[in-house]
Amino acid sequence: MTDVKVFFDRSDLPILVPVGTLLSEAARLAGLDLNQPCGGQGRCGRCAVQVTEGEVRRRSTLRLTDQDVADGYALACQTVVEGVVRVVIPVQEKVERRLTSDRTAAEVQVPEWYSPQKQSVRRLWLSLNPPSVDDQTDDWSRLQTALRQVGVGPVQASLPVLRRIGPVLRAQNWQVTALVDQEAWDCPDCPARLIDLQPGQVVTDQPLWGAAIDIGTTTVSLWLVDLLTGRVVAQVAEYNGQIMRGEDVISRIIYATKAGGEQEMQQRVVETINTLIERACKRAGCQGEQIMKATFTGNSTMIHLFLAIPAASIRLAPFVPIINQVPTLTAAELGLHMHPEATVDCLPGVASYVGADISAGVLSSGMAETDLVTLFMDVGTNGEIVLGTREWMVTCACSAGPAFEGAGVANGMRATQGAIEEVWINADNYEPHYRVIGGSKPKGICGSGLISLLAELFMTGVIDRSGGINANLPTPRVRQREGRTEYVVAWASETATAEDITITRVDIDNLVRTKAAIYAGYTVLAQNVGLTLDVVEQFLIGGSFGKYINVEKAIQIGLLPDMPWEKFQFLGNTSVRGAYFALLDHQQRKRIHEIAGRMTYIELSADNQFYEAFMSAMFLPHTEMQLFPSVAEELRVGSTGGSG
Amino acid sequence: MTDVKVFFDRSDLPILVPVGTLLSEAARLAGLDLNQPCGGQGRCGRCAVQVTEGEVRRRSTLRLTDQDVADGYALACQTVVEGVVRVVIPVQEKVERRLTSDRTAAEVQVPEWYSPQKQSVRRLWLSLNPPSVDDQTDDWSRLQTALRQVGVGPVQASLPVLRRIGPVLRAQNWQVTALVDQEAWDCPDCPARLIDLQPGQVVTDQPLWGAAIDIGTTTVSLWLVDLLTGRVVAQVAEYNGQIMRGEDVISRIIYATKAGGEQEMQQRVVETINTLIERACKRAGCQGEQIMKATFTGNSTMIHLFLAIPAASIRLAPFVPIINQVPTLTAAELGLHMHPEATVDCLPGVASYVGADISAGVLSSGMAETDLVTLFMDVGTNGEIVLGTREWMVTCACSAGPAFEGAGVANGMRATQGAIEEVWINADNYEPHYRVIGGSKPKGICGSGLISLLAELFMTGVIDRSGGINANLPTPRVRQREGRTEYVVAWASETATAEDITITRVDIDNLVRTKAAIYAGYTVLAQNVGLTLDVVEQFLIGGSFGKYINVEKAIQIGLLPDMPWEKFQFLGNTSVRGAYFALLDHQQRKRIHEIAGRMTYIELSADNQFYEAFMSAMFLPHTEMQLFPSVAEELRVGSTGGSG
Repeated sequence: MTDVKVFFDRSDLPILVPVGTLLSEAARLAGLDLNQPCGGQGRCGRCAVQVTEGEVRRRSTLRLTDQDVADGYALACQTVVEGVVRVVIPVQEKVERRLTSDRTAAEVQVPEWYSPQKQSVRRLWLSLNPPSVDDQTDDWSRLQTALRQVGVGPVQASLPVLRRIGPVLRAQNWQVTALVDQEAWDCPDCPARLIDLQPGQVVTDQPLWGAAIDIGTTTVSLWLVDLLTGRVVAQVAEYNGQIMRGEDVISRIIYATKAGGEQEMQQRVVETINTLIERACKRAGCQGEQIMKATFTGNSTMIHLFLAIPAASIRLAPFVPIINQVPTLTAAELGLHMHPEATVDCLPGVASYVGADISAGVLSSGMAETDLVTLFMDVGTNGEIVLGTREWMVTCACSAGPAFEGAGVANGMRATQGAIEEVWINADNYEPHYRVIGGSKPKGICGSGLISLLAELFMTGVIDRSGGINANLPTPRVRQREGRTEYVVAWASETATAEDITITRVDIDNLVRTKAAIYAGYTVLAQNVGLTLDVVEQFLIGGSFGKYINVEKAIQIGLLPDMPWEKFQFLGNTSVRGAYFALLDHQQRKRIHEIAGRMTYIELSADNQFYEAFMSAMFLPHTEMQLFPSVAEELRVGSTGGSG
Repeated sequence: MTDVKVFFDRSDLPILVPVGTLLSEAARLAGLDLNQPCGGQGRCGRCAVQVTEGEVRRRSTLRLTDQDVADGYALACQTVVEGVVRVVIPVQEKVERRLTSDRTAAEVQVPEWYSPQKQSVRRLWLSLNPPSVDDQTDDWSRLQTALRQVGVGPVQASLPVLRRIGPVLRAQNWQVTALVDQEAWDCPDCPARLIDLQPGQVVTDQPLWGAAIDIGTTTVSLWLVDLLTGRVVAQVAEYNGQIMRGEDVISRIIYATKAGGEQEMQQRVVETINTLIERACKRAGCQGEQIMKATFTGNSTMIHLFLAIPAASIRLAPFVPIINQVPTLTAAELGLHMHPEATVDCLPGVASYVGADISAGVLSSGMAETDLVTLFMDVGTNGEIVLGTREWMVTCACSAGPAFEGAGVANGMRATQGAIEEVWINADNYEPHYRVIGGSKPKGICGSGLISLLAELFMTGVIDRSGGINANLPTPRVRQREGRTEYVVAWASETATAEDITITRVDIDNLVRTKAAIYAGYTVLAQNVGLTLDVVEQFLIGGSFGKYINVEKAIQIGLLPDMPWEKFQFLGNTSVRGAYFALLDHQQRKRIHEIAGRMTYIELSADNQFYEAFMSAMFLPHTEMQLFPSVAEELRVGSTGGSG
């Protein structure tokens, strides 16, 4: 195949690629980062580049206007080079690289059950008898004997550790500190593992470091923990470095399927984790190499991509993951900047769309210990739901899509600086008020803002029960533009972008579909165990997004079932908390395993019940108004008030 | 530190090194191979190079004459650069790179106890139920279940294998071939290990490959084995690539202690092994990647260097190794060109100088199964001896040195083309006859030739019982040169080197010391268990060198005890045979472990008995002539005959 030159931007140094190479691939080879939020499927239009010279072939021009094409614009992921070309990459929508939630985390309570004895990783001080002509035992047997004398049974070590023991034993006259992981979750009968051997005796009160890590599709969170006291010493979070290769799990899987994609995805998230380790360690005054154990959670796709295990089967019927129960690994195998021999334990998932994050959430939420009929939901990029008590649990995942994280909505955005997070609409003149994160001019609307906005639009009659915008209202806020009806939340003059911030009919449909999928999830779970939702005694909501949901408004749109507000509890990141529990205590780790094994997974894609429940929930708040008596009452009062 | 240029030979491309760098190190950095048979201790004089320009500092000029130094010669391992220098490396004594013993090995009998059921590595054909909406089990659990159904208990897999299972299961409709190692010697309770998963079903009669490898100080031997039939399909051998960094274990350890030395030693022997794998596989028509299991033996130093575990403690009092019982490893960890997940099992050693080669030898010689009082000796670069029955065993190592491999003797050489392997001396005129390996002109004298020569010199009265050469004999063969008395075995006109081949008083002393150390070993072992050597019922000799020893002559010099010849058995390479046994059968592997654990090691360096026994054996055949009645008788007859 002929190789041709591709010049990027103003560079005089071309890269050589075969005819037929995608521009996105050429950019990657040139070391240039192109955002591909849809994973290179040609759906999002965000990788548009301008071809200023030479021939290309566009497989698709979706989201490009004729004028765009005439101006040379092309979707990098859908366009192949046919000869020497010059390409200009527009300044990309910048991924905000730093979350502002880093904390020293004094606020995390050490669980009352915590005890250092429950920790599988131990630091032991050993004083060995030196060898002599009369005691010719080899070093490794001598060390094993010394460990046996302090209660550690048979012990194994990797070759790199074995290579160190001779010099370390001799460095301080056969006084050493051994770091041992006594039990692997997947092999209680296996020997303990010698993580490291250090010369001399470590000062007693020096912390023994561990990390609990939640790999979210959007955000990776890390808690740095002193395993000897159970204290969380630092909490840090960062956008998942895979975001620019897809905003949802499906896009990521698609990207990972491309040549080199699996490795790239793995490296990207490991880089994010390593950044977090560095930040947390700086805060705690330690080194990454001092972290001896880490527990990981995340949805099944995130865990697969983290391990560079092919994730393709997750998105293809019958939607089975390659692995739910990952064996114990070491940091070195994954390129993590911890101690190379640190125990890496990925918590178990249940199914392709009910991952370790949910098992961990069920554990840390206390759901698995209660007799109350409980609904647990993790609201993140996907919506996973568990219904049950400590006796039984059913679970499902709603392919909700990331609408409530701001994606799929024209002016949607993540909950960062400049996002409208709450909206109130005056029922008389349809004028909105809003609150912006950080208090600056708004850039867009985040999830909680969208729920709030949708509820207000509905309750004030701007939209009807099917989501249709009432085009005849006496307000300039409702208007037609480019054939779409929309409501203007903020005028260009008040925004940071100097453009109107609006919500369109299409956006509203996306949001309604999302909330309908979630509500249908509750319904199907209840039906599956022969119950109705009114028996639910508590509703536990995990996921950092959950914290900002306004229950009243979420009920008004039918995202949450109509229950007394006090039954709802927002628990924050239950996933990372579950990882923290598993990090602290081997029994908790086993408990998660048990929980994951005990949850009955219901695959909704093949469920007729689900389809029916979904269609019924496509109204605001629901087709069956009697399911939402408080909303019905409010509407009645509201309309009475309006007419009065 | 200032960097200076070093030019080698006629090259115009210098390399830059700091002032103070050893010439040997500079040569290594320049990619030039310098022989360093003594490991860079400055003792052998074989790394002499000529400095033709510039300043160097000689730490030692041992073995260089004043004229040599005046001519610019310097020992590369003892000379540091002080400025820009130009160095000429003389054509080195060439290490013969290829042994001629490669065989297809039809002659190795499969042991009568062999059965494929005893093999820990199994190849299993599995037909899995594909996943469906109703059976959402993840791939890994599905595979584990299928393995359980064919009798394989819990199973583990490494991350690289887990990464492959998804695509492999789907490649041929969930029909797969699994390669499993069911049991690791060091953890019978651990899960089985999935070595590989291959799509489809392998043809039944395709071999399943394994390798038994003996890492000798001089020679590495590999037997390629079909694990399903037990047949040895190829036998190959090659000089250990570490030879040019030291001819004996002590020199190797010293070299390995230098910066980068451990890695270099590891790479050198792995390179040798990989060469052997390639050669054996070519012969058998397979690929290295098809080898799924390998067992290794060798002395403790060789095993340490193979694993890049520091070996320094082996040569320093109290002479303890870092590790005798090595955990199960994989080929990838060591860079071996087998299947990356192939099980690598290093057999257990007993002590620094009684290694896995001896445990393996005791197993394969049958010594551990007999009621006969047995002496077992492995004659290689060192001499290790075991005395015992299946009930008890004592062992020791004689730091014999490699004199019988031709080192430490001026005209000594290895048993290759051009080596004098047997000598007869006419008692009347002291004229020798000799036989040369390959029939060509002689280059030197190998071990069996030296034994033969020493015995003949003694029995014909050229030397006396203390090894002194009788300078008054009426023959030009005995002469003085450069202050040394020597006997000429071959005149320059008959040799390949066009120089006389001689044996000097110094050479004779070296040989006598070696044989005395070995005989003292027998004595001390017997004394330790309250026996004398005359109770020995059989004498088993392992080591490829052993095969060529002439028993009569070895008894004449007191290298072997004076016993009826039929009590001696030469077994060849008992070490590789033991590795072969362990490769075939897991019970045999455990047996070696048991044997190694049961042998009582006696450290001679600290033994007064040994010193006394050694001094007594410093005569030919021994101080106490009554220990060698057959020799005494022959001498009596000979001298009677001479006077008659």
